[in-house]
Amino acid sequence: MAESMKGLHRTCRCAEVTKEMVGSKVTLMGWVQKARNKGGIVFVDLRDRSGIMQLIFENGNIDEAGFEKAGKLRSEFVIAVTGTVENRGGAVNENLATGAIELRAESLRILAESDVPPFPIEENSKTKDEIRLKYRYLDLRRPDLQRNIMLKSKVAQLTRKFFTEEGFLEIETPMLGKSTPEGARDYLVPSRIHPGSFYGLPQSPQLYKQLLMCSGYDRYIQIARCFRDEDLRADRQPEFTQIDMELSFVDVDDVIDVNERFLAYLFKEVLDVDVKLPIQRITWQEAMDRFGSDKPDMRFGMELHDVSEVVKDCGFGVFKSALENGGSVRGINAEGQGGMPRKKIDKLVEFAKGYGAKGLAYIAIAEDGTRKSSFAKFMTDEEMDALVQAMEGKPGDLLLFAADKNKVIYDVLGALRVELAKQMDLLDKNEYRFVWVTEFPLLEWNEEENRYTAMHHPFTMLMDEDIPLIESGDLGKIRAKAYDIVLNGNEIGGGSVRIHQNDIQEKMFEMLGFTREAAYEQFGFLLNAFKYGVPPHAGLAYGLDRLVMLMAKVDSIRDVIAFPKVKDASCLMTESPSRVSEQQLEELGLEVEPETEE
Amino acid sequence: MAESMKGLHRTCRCAEVTKEMVGSKVTLMGWVQKARNKGGIVFVDLRDRSGIMQLIFENGNIDEAGFEKAGKLRSEFVIAVTGTVENRGGAVNENLATGAIELRAESLRILAESDVPPFPIEENSKTKDEIRLKYRYLDLRRPDLQRNIMLKSKVAQLTRKFFTEEGFLEIETPMLGKSTPEGARDYLVPSRIHPGSFYGLPQSPQLYKQLLMCSGYDRYIQIARCFRDEDLRADRQPEFTQIDMELSFVDVDDVIDVNERFLAYLFKEVLDVDVKLPIQRITWQEAMDRFGSDKPDMRFGMELHDVSEVVKDCGFGVFKSALENGGSVRGINAEGQGGMPRKKIDKLVEFAKGYGAKGLAYIAIAEDGTRKSSFAKFMTDEEMDALVQAMEGKPGDLLLFAADKNKVIYDVLGALRVELAKQMDLLDKNEYRFVWVTEFPLLEWNEEENRYTAMHHPFTMLMDEDIPLIESGDLGKIRAKAYDIVLNGNEIGGGSVRIHQNDIQEKMFEMLGFTREAAYEQFGFLLNAFKYGVPPHAGLAYGLDRLVMLMAKVDSIRDVIAFPKVKDASCLMTESPSRVSEQQLEELGLEVEPETEE
Repeated sequence: MAESMKGLHRTCRCAEVTKEMVGSKVTLMGWVQKARNKGGIVFVDLRDRSGIMQLIFENGNIDEAGFEKAGKLRSEFVIAVTGTVENRGGAVNENLATGAIELRAESLRILAESDVPPFPIEENSKTKDEIRLKYRYLDLRRPDLQRNIMLKSKVAQLTRKFFTEEGFLEIETPMLGKSTPEGARDYLVPSRIHPGSFYGLPQSPQLYKQLLMCSGYDRYIQIARCFRDEDLRADRQPEFTQIDMELSFVDVDDVIDVNERFLAYLFKEVLDVDVKLPIQRITWQEAMDRFGSDKPDMRFGMELHDVSEVVKDCGFGVFKSALENGGSVRGINAEGQGGMPRKKIDKLVEFAKGYGAKGLAYIAIAEDGTRKSSFAKFMTDEEMDALVQAMEGKPGDLLLFAADKNKVIYDVLGALRVELAKQMDLLDKNEYRFVWVTEFPLLEWNEEENRYTAMHHPFTMLMDEDIPLIESGDLGKIRAKAYDIVLNGNEIGGGSVRIHQNDIQEKMFEMLGFTREAAYEQFGFLLNAFKYGVPPHAGLAYGLDRLVMLMAKVDSIRDVIAFPKVKDASCLMTESPSRVSEQQLEELGLEVEPETEE
Repeated sequence: MAESMKGLHRTCRCAEVTKEMVGSKVTLMGWVQKARNKGGIVFVDLRDRSGIMQLIFENGNIDEAGFEKAGKLRSEFVIAVTGTVENRGGAVNENLATGAIELRAESLRILAESDVPPFPIEENSKTKDEIRLKYRYLDLRRPDLQRNIMLKSKVAQLTRKFFTEEGFLEIETPMLGKSTPEGARDYLVPSRIHPGSFYGLPQSPQLYKQLLMCSGYDRYIQIARCFRDEDLRADRQPEFTQIDMELSFVDVDDVIDVNERFLAYLFKEVLDVDVKLPIQRITWQEAMDRFGSDKPDMRFGMELHDVSEVVKDCGFGVFKSALENGGSVRGINAEGQGGMPRKKIDKLVEFAKGYGAKGLAYIAIAEDGTRKSSFAKFMTDEEMDALVQAMEGKPGDLLLFAADKNKVIYDVLGALRVELAKQMDLLDKNEYRFVWVTEFPLLEWNEEENRYTAMHHPFTMLMDEDIPLIESGDLGKIRAKAYDIVLNGNEIGGGSVRIHQNDIQEKMFEMLGFTREAAYEQFGFLLNAFKYGVPPHAGLAYGLDRLVMLMAKVDSIRDVIAFPKVKDASCLMTESPSRVSEQQLEELGLEVEPETEE
C-alpha cells in the first residue's frame, strides 16, 4: 500500500526542527526507527540522515484511519507525516538534538513498506561484516556509517576549496590509459576495437600530472580514483582515492608549506583540532633510528636506543654475532611494564619473530630494582648496569632488545613499539600528531630482481648534495627529494620533487638497469615531452580514504567507503566480478582459459 | 645547461604583475613565447598560464654573461628572470593585460631548454588534429585550450559549491562494478583473483545512486567518470564525465527547480549570462511537432507546420500516399531564402535523404510573389494559395515539405531546420537558450529485438495519469516522468523520477519482456534493496564535457578534455591501448584469440 507523496512538500529534515518551531505545522519524511503503542498512543521515532524526531499519534489529533495506519508501522517503513511541533510531554531525551520536542501527527502516509531487515539499523553494529556488506544498502543507514560518509563529503569539499583558492586547477586525467609494467600490477581493460590490445587503469595520475606541468598548468589538483591489482591486505582496496596534486616552479619547502596550511585548515574546519605549524620534520634515517619506522607514531615515546657500543665487548653471543655481521643491538624501554608476566613476554617474542627477529632479549626491572633477564648469565653486573643506564631503565621498566641487521631490527622494534603502545593504551584517537619524514633513500635493493628499484618512482629527484654519489657508485646512499606526511603512525600522503633534467633522468634509468630503449618503450611520451621545456616541478598525493578514516576515528577504510570490496576484491552486494556472455568475450577477441572455467 | 631555481622564489605569474608594481623587483618564471634581438636589446615575451609579460634584456642592466644567455633564448625555453617592473618604453600593446608594462631583466636562469616544437604554440592552431593530439602536452600549452581547461575547472568548483550548499553530499561510487547487458556496451575488467570473471566499468552510477537514496543519504552529487564501449561518433569519448545527482522525497518540479537555479548561478558566475527563470518547458510531443527534435534549438524559429489537413484532397501523389499510410505532410518556412539557387535546393534534398526522406518538396516564392515549385503541377492555384498561407509564406520565402511517417518527418525536418539555420547564420554562440523537454515516452519499440525497450532506463517512473495504460495495453503511449535540459539544440542533461513501488517495477520489467528471473539476475541487489523501505526519489545527470564545450563556445568536446581519445578510442599520445605481456594475460587466465594477433 505504497502511497504517493503528491501534494506534500517536506518542510525540513528531522533534526532541523528546532524549539523555535514549536506551534508550527511541519511535514517530515523518513524511516521508522521504532514504533510502539503505549496506552493508546503510538510513539514513532522517525529517522533521516539528520537524526531522529519523535512522533505522537493520538486518536483525535489524527483521524481514525490515520491512527489505524500508525498502528501498523514497523521498522524501516518510509512515511510522510504532517503535524504540529510541540514541547515534549514526557521526559526530555538528552541524547537527541530534538530531545525536547516532538511532533503531534495530524496526517500520515506510508510511502513504502519494509520487510523485517536482516539486522537492526543502529550504531556500532555487532552484525558480522559479511552480512553487513551483502546488505550494504541497509548497513549504510546506520548513523555511524552515515556520519563517516558525510565527513568524507565535507573533507572533499574543503580540500577542493582550499587548493582552488591557492591557484590549483582541477583537471581530469584518463582512466583508460597505458599499462606500464613498472610498479604494482595494473588492472587491464581489453579493447574491442583493437582486439588483443589493452588499456591500463591508472595506479595514479603520475605521468599525466607531470605532463600537465610540462603544459604550463602550474598547479593541478584532482581527487582521483586509482587502481592496484594486488593481493589485498587487511586495509587495502582494489580501487581507492587520492588527493593528487602537482606544482611547478617549486622545491620541497613550497610543497610542504602549502600542505601544512591545508592540513591545519582541514582539521580546524572539520574537527576543530589545532595543528601546530610548522609540522615537525625528521629525516628518514632519523625516523628509522628513533622509531624503527618511516611512518612513526609520534603520540608516544618509547624510542629505540642503539646500545651496540655498550654491549660490544660483552659475552652474549647473540649480541656479538649481530655486531660482527655488520648489524647492531638496539632496545626499547617499555616503562612501567617490568612486572609483565613471563607468558606475556613470550607472546611479545613470538610477535617479534613474525617480523623477522630470531628472538628478543629482555631485562625486567622489578619495583625493588632487582632484574630478571633472559641473558644476564652472559653479562657481568657492570655490563648490565651500563646497559640499563643506556636504556634509561628505572625500577618497574621492561627493556626489550633485538640484535640483527639494521633492517630487521627496525622492522621488529618498530612494530613492537606500536604493539606495546596498544597494550599500554597509549594511542588516543582524539590526539592528532603529524610529522614529515624527508630525505628518503632514492633506491632500494631488490634481491629478487638483483637490481635497484626506485623507492618512490623513477622520476624522483635526488638531493642536490648527493648527485656526485651517482658517479662514485654508492647508489644505496643517495637520498631523494621525497617526503611523506605521517599522522599517528599512518602514512597519509607522500610525494617528491621530480627530475626535470634530461641528463639526470637518463642516469636514473641507467641506475635502475633500464636500457634506453626500454625506458622509451614505457615512458617515451613523458621523455619526449621533457625535450620541449619542462619546468621544475614537484607533487604530493594523499590517500583520501585513510585520511578520512583517521578523522572519523575508525579502524578500517571500509568504514569510509560507501561500497567497498572485501579481501578477494569482490563486492558481496552486487556479486561482482561475475561471468560475462560469450558474445562479450568474442567481441573482445578473448578466450577464457579452459581450466579457469567453473 | 639546465640551471637550478635554488634560492629563487617566483613573485607571481606573468599577468598578475600590475601597473601598481612599477618600480618594484619581481621574479617571474615561464616559457619563452618569442625572443628577438632588436638594436642590441633582447625582447622576450614570457608566457605562463596567466598570460604574457614582455622582458627587456639590455647590457648594463644585466651582466654580460646574462645578456649573452638572453641572446640564446629560443621559443619554449623555460626561464626564471628577476628584474624591475617599468612602464613600457615602446608602444602600449592593447592586446595584452600587461601591455602597458614590461620587466627590465637583471638576472636570468635557463631552467630548461627546448627543441624546436613541431608546431607553434599559438591561438587557433591550424595544425592538423593528429599532430596536435600526438603532442598533446604541447597542444595544451596553447592559450585557447588553456582557457577551456581552466573554465572546466571553474565549472566543476561552482557545481560542487552550489549543490553542497543545497544539502547534497558528494559520495563516490565504485568503478569496478557489475557488468549488466542492458543499455550500451560495458568496458570489462578481467579479474585475476577470480579468473574468467569480469568487472564492468560504470556507464553511469545509476544503480548505486538509487541505492544511496534507499540508504537515506537524501541528496547525492558526484562528478563521475562514465564509460561506454560504443563505436564512436564524431563527438563521443569512450570515457566521459557526468555531473550526477539524485534526490529523495521529490517529484519532477523539485528536480527542475534546483537545477534551474544551478544553471542560472553557473552561467552568471562563469559567463555573466543571465538565465531567465523559470526556464521554458515543453513536452516531448510538442518538441517533436514544433521542432522535429527532442533537443530543439530555441535560438531561432522556423518551426514545423503540419499541413496534412490543407493538402489532404490535393492531387499530389506523394502527399496523398503519405497520408494514406498514416503519416503526415509537414513543412518549414526558410524565410528570405526564396531566391535560393536550384543547385543549393538540390543539396538540401540530398541532405534530407541522408535522414531518411524519399525526397523534399518545395515552393520558392520570389520577391514579386511568383512561385517556383517542384509539385505545382499537381495542385490547383487555390490549393497552392491555401498551402502557402498555412505556412505563413511571404514573398522571398522558401517553403520545404516532407511527406512520410511522422518519425521520418521529425528526423528530416528537425535536421533540415538546423542545417538551414547554419546556412542562414542564425546560430549565435553567445546566445544561450535553455528549454526543458518533459513527458518523454516511457518505451520505444525496438524493431530488431521485437520488443519495447526503455527510452531512458528500466527504473523510470511513468506519469500518474498514464498508469492505467499498462492494463489497456497501449504501451507506446505511456509517458514517463522524464525530463531533459536542452541548451542551443544540445541535450546537456537529463533524468527522471524513479519507480519506487515494487508492483510498478515488476510491471515495468514485464513490459520490457524480462522474466522475473532475468530481472533478478541483473538487478537483484536493487530489487532486494527496495524491499526494505525505499523513498520516492528522482535524479538528473549532466554531460559535463558537453556543457563546458558550449560555455567555452567550441565545437568539440575534445577541446575541453585534457587528454582525449580519437575516433577509434585510442590515445595518440600514449599509444594506448597496447599489447601487454604474456605474463599479464596468464595471470588473468586469458588468451587472445589467434586471429587477432598482429
